Amino acid sequence: MSYNLLKGKRGIIFGALDENSIAWKTAERVHEEGGKFVLTNAPVALRMGAINELAKKTGSEVIPADATSFEDLQNLVDKSVEILGGKLDFVLHSIGMSVNVRKGRHYTDLKPDWTAKGWDISAVSFHKVMQTLYKSDAMNEWGSIVALTYMAAQRVFPDYNDMADNKAYLESIARSFGYFFGRDKKVRVNTISQSPTPTTAGQGVKGFSGFIKYAEEMSPLGNATADDCADYTVTLFSDLTKRVTLQNLYNDGGFSNMGVSEKVMDRFEDEE
Amino acid sequence: MSYNLLKGKRGIIFGALDENSIAWKTAERVHEEGGKFVLTNAPVALRMGAINELAKKTGSEVIPADATSFEDLQNLVDKSVEILGGKLDFVLHSIGMSVNVRKGRHYTDLKPDWTAKGWDISAVSFHKVMQTLYKSDAMNEWGSIVALTYMAAQRVFPDYNDMADNKAYLESIARSFGYFFGRDKKVRVNTISQSPTPTTAGQGVKGFSGFIKYAEEMSPLGNATADDCADYTVTLFSDLTKRVTLQNLYNDGGFSNMGVSEKVMDRFEDEE
Amino acid sequence: MSYNLLKGKRGIIFGALDENSIAWKTAERVHEEGGKFVLTNAPVALRMGAINELAKKTGSEVIPADATSFEDLQNLVDKSVEILGGKLDFVLHSIGMSVNVRKGRHYTDLKPDWTAKGWDISAVSFHKVMQTLYKSDAMNEWGSIVALTYMAAQRVFPDYNDMADNKAYLESIARSFGYFFGRDKKVRVNTISQSPTPTTAGQGVKGFSGFIKYAEEMSPLGNATADDCADYTVTLFSDLTKRVTLQNLYNDGGFSNMGVSEKVMDRFEDEE
Amino acid sequence: MSYNLLKGKRGIIFGALDENSIAWKTAERVHEEGGKFVLTNAPVALRMGAINELAKKTGSEVIPADATSFEDLQNLVDKSVEILGGKLDFVLHSIGMSVNVRKGRHYTDLKPDWTAKGWDISAVSFHKVMQTLYKSDAMNEWGSIVALTYMAAQRVFPDYNDMADNKAYLESIARSFGYFFGRDKKVRVNTISQSPTPTTAGQGVKGFSGFIKYAEEMSPLGNATADDCADYTVTLFSDLTKRVTLQNLYNDGGFSNMGVSEKVMDRFEDEE
Repeated sequence: MSYNLLKGKRGIIFGALDENSIAWKTAERVHEEGGKFVLTNAPVALRMGAINELAKKTGSEVIPADATSFEDLQNLVDKSVEILGGKLDFVLHSIGMSVNVRKGRHYTDLKPDWTAKGWDISAVSFHKVMQTLYKSDAMNEWGSIVALTYMAAQRVFPDYNDMADNKAYLESIARSFGYFFGRDKKVRVNTISQSPTPTTAGQGVKGFSGFIKYAEEMSPLGNATADDCADYTVTLFSDLTKRVTLQNLYNDGGFSNMGVSEKVMDRFEDEE
Repeated sequence: MSYNLLKGKRGIIFGALDENSIAWKTAERVHEEGGKFVLTNAPVALRMGAINELAKKTGSEVIPADATSFEDLQNLVDKSVEILGGKLDFVLHSIGMSVNVRKGRHYTDLKPDWTAKGWDISAVSFHKVMQTLYKSDAMNEWGSIVALTYMAAQRVFPDYNDMADNKAYLESIARSFGYFFGRDKKVRVNTISQSPTPTTAGQGVKGFSGFIKYAEEMSPLGNATADDCADYTVTLFSDLTKRVTLQNLYNDGGFSNMGVSEKVMDRFEDEE
Repeated sequence: MSYNLLKGKRGIIFGALDENSIAWKTAERVHEEGGKFVLTNAPVALRMGAINELAKKTGSEVIPADATSFEDLQNLVDKSVEILGGKLDFVLHSIGMSVNVRKGRHYTDLKPDWTAKGWDISAVSFHKVMQTLYKSDAMNEWGSIVALTYMAAQRVFPDYNDMADNKAYLESIARSFGYFFGRDKKVRVNTISQSPTPTTAGQGVKGFSGFIKYAEEMSPLGNATADDCADYTVTLFSDLTKRVTLQNLYNDGGFSNMGVSEKVMDRFEDEE
Repeated sequence: MSYNLLKGKRGIIFGALDENSIAWKTAERVHEEGGKFVLTNAPVALRMGAINELAKKTGSEVIPADATSFEDLQNLVDKSVEILGGKLDFVLHSIGMSVNVRKGRHYTDLKPDWTAKGWDISAVSFHKVMQTLYKSDAMNEWGSIVALTYMAAQRVFPDYNDMADNKAYLESIARSFGYFFGRDKKVRVNTISQSPTPTTAGQGVKGFSGFIKYAEEMSPLGNATADDCADYTVTLFSDLTKRVTLQNLYNDGGFSNMGVSEKVMDRFEDEE
């Protein structure tokens, strides 16, 4: 189904690793809606992923970029504007990685170098992307920038480790930079706080399937899927949300405003 | 511009008083996007308004209903389903009135009867609308219910008087009923918290133009207009936001996440 | 243990029903800390309760008052000032009752008269108490007004029914009136959002013990008790929190900022 | 005035630079309330400050520590426990510095090395302090850890620059580590979000006096002072707030819940 919501719009999509990625689904939906874009990922992720398949399917080019490198980002932005034939209308930031999580380091025993690396990749990269776009004046007026985040930025999910703090920093960047991007360039900046999603990255986390089940039982509409997130992102890239900015928007079947559901309570009442 | 986002969808729109109303603009946009609907308002408001013009323009029927009366609401829902030819996909609640505000009663000196009447019309009516829809099983799965609200529900705006408390109650209803409507009927319920908007209702409020200016200077993208709100509501009625529920969504140019803007600060620095 | 934190302070305590009540515990602690007060409750509650025992223990007088009646409240305030020998420094509002809950009416099927009555008693009474105090100029500068609330005002707890909406309204009153009380009288107004507490009122609710267990497992420090709440209230009545106002303060062992605890997750992982 | 609220309690206070510092005032108040503590600051700050005067006045020892160095922090914790004669009951983290702010670098043009340094000092240091305390098992049960923060973590204050993001990260650490510290050691962790305060550090910021005035006019009780913050911190270190944890607590005269005050509006209405 297509509505042509993004006809004539140009952008960059970060973080499409494989077909389970939210960024992958988003690229597909943006393509269906008439948007053109450049795909990008870190060189190492590109090697692991199947991004060329996605590029072919969507008629996109792939430009490798380490999102922590201003040099790479400048090259990415310059080439994207050139390839797409004009300034950009949308950007999706879907990047996150904690070395402490990968190496199984507990939150009460973090290794500072790993913390710094995860923070740089997961959070500061969003600032670097926007700084590059802003200084290059590469966004069109009423353009839209979206980063993906998770509710661990607001509430404790013990296994999320230092990614919780990274996401809090990322969301703060969205507000801080969103003010200047809005005031000076009429560009909006928002984050989508998505249900836990069984991406390739997520699937490796300890206890993840139990956690998915918990979130599913808590949410009145069930967990939002990667496809739901792609749809929601399309609305934020469209001209229908022009004055929505600095917001953290939950796409989570209602989880974020639940105290407890009857389904979850059932597990506690049985024992009485 | 139309994307056919609401093609085949049916609904009810409350509160279109005149062409400055947010509900009026929303009705026009929903019509452009292919949605069909019944217009409704309180009998007294219908007499004052120009709703027949809107009905003609959008091919809609008008059914008067006092939103505090279960009898009127039941009649409205039953007839709407009949007229539109099936269950409903969307409902817009845009109703608010404080007798204390109208009569110039200060918040520290409220008259209980007036407080109760404003609460019933502005807030409880939303519960009554949903209770009627829920019990009649009148909503289609993945339908969408939206009520308009204002940030006075979270933060103090002194002139907003007891409407602040009414909006807090309204937003709580959205969450409380949204849980059951989501769990049982797969229907989502959200509120849009809109910038101050110079509607006919708003224009009468003391100091309103100064307040509009303050909000405009504070918001990085400026105040959201009634047209912006209509657009945003269309996305929430569409199939692209299926798992967004229980949320209070700010359509306000970023105001809600501002502590202070440089423009507002300029008024304070001059004096140093 | 006493610190004399409230030496020389005068106040009114609403809602001490029996020794399980938070208001009862608070009265005991305020007395220990040197505060003097009048106890009050609705005439009907006074008949059921053992408040005379508390009055004797704390050297207090009891003045019956229906908190929905301006006449009763005016009498209460006037007599309290007279009995205690001066203007007031603190007020505790601990009043809540939903007819819909009592009669087992489901949230999707509320009876409007019952909804209105519960709202008047649980929420509007707080406005009436403050309006009476404000108009009578009965509070000393830097006085402190506290109302008890529950997190259902922010998040869905299905069994809480329309009390959720009442608490949202109550918290909004705290902000709205707190602005005027602060600006004009230098009085602070806050709400304490307490863990579920096994008071006599709470114990009757369906599934309450399962719910207490859930909250206990979710909270890193366990549920806050009525005694904890009494202690916390004492700090808010003391001179050590003079510029804390308009706040909703969680006394809940951390529950409000938890997404999930490992203990709760254990109930989901077992099934994998 | 003293209540002996902290009699017999031991702790560490970070960040007392000079008599305008919040940490300095807090040290004085903690001393008055009977608490014993070690003072600490970065070696470079110790040279600039007058901390020996404070140490003398409060009978405290000074142990220099770079709060980004685990080695220094381990030494600090070990020696503090030894000097004070037992495990600790309270810790105050009052540390913040942005190189970008100091060097006048705009938020849209940050220098990554400076961003990283400010983040490490202002935010990660709080994690390192807690990690050291946790691994050394140096806190008593029902101990209390407090860090000072600012509302720029939630809302945009343009001049606050990357300190906004640092404070967001800091507050996330409070929640994330607070969960484990609560669950495993019965220790509470909170942040106090204080009004803008004319400390020596703050006074250098461009437009700071205009900003103080704005906050003063917006807040119904006016800006909270450093003395107010010291008092509030004392309540959080006391036994009266045992189950308050993971919270961000505003000590700000009500600013955080204001949309606009009448005083601020006066500056906009004049022009109409």
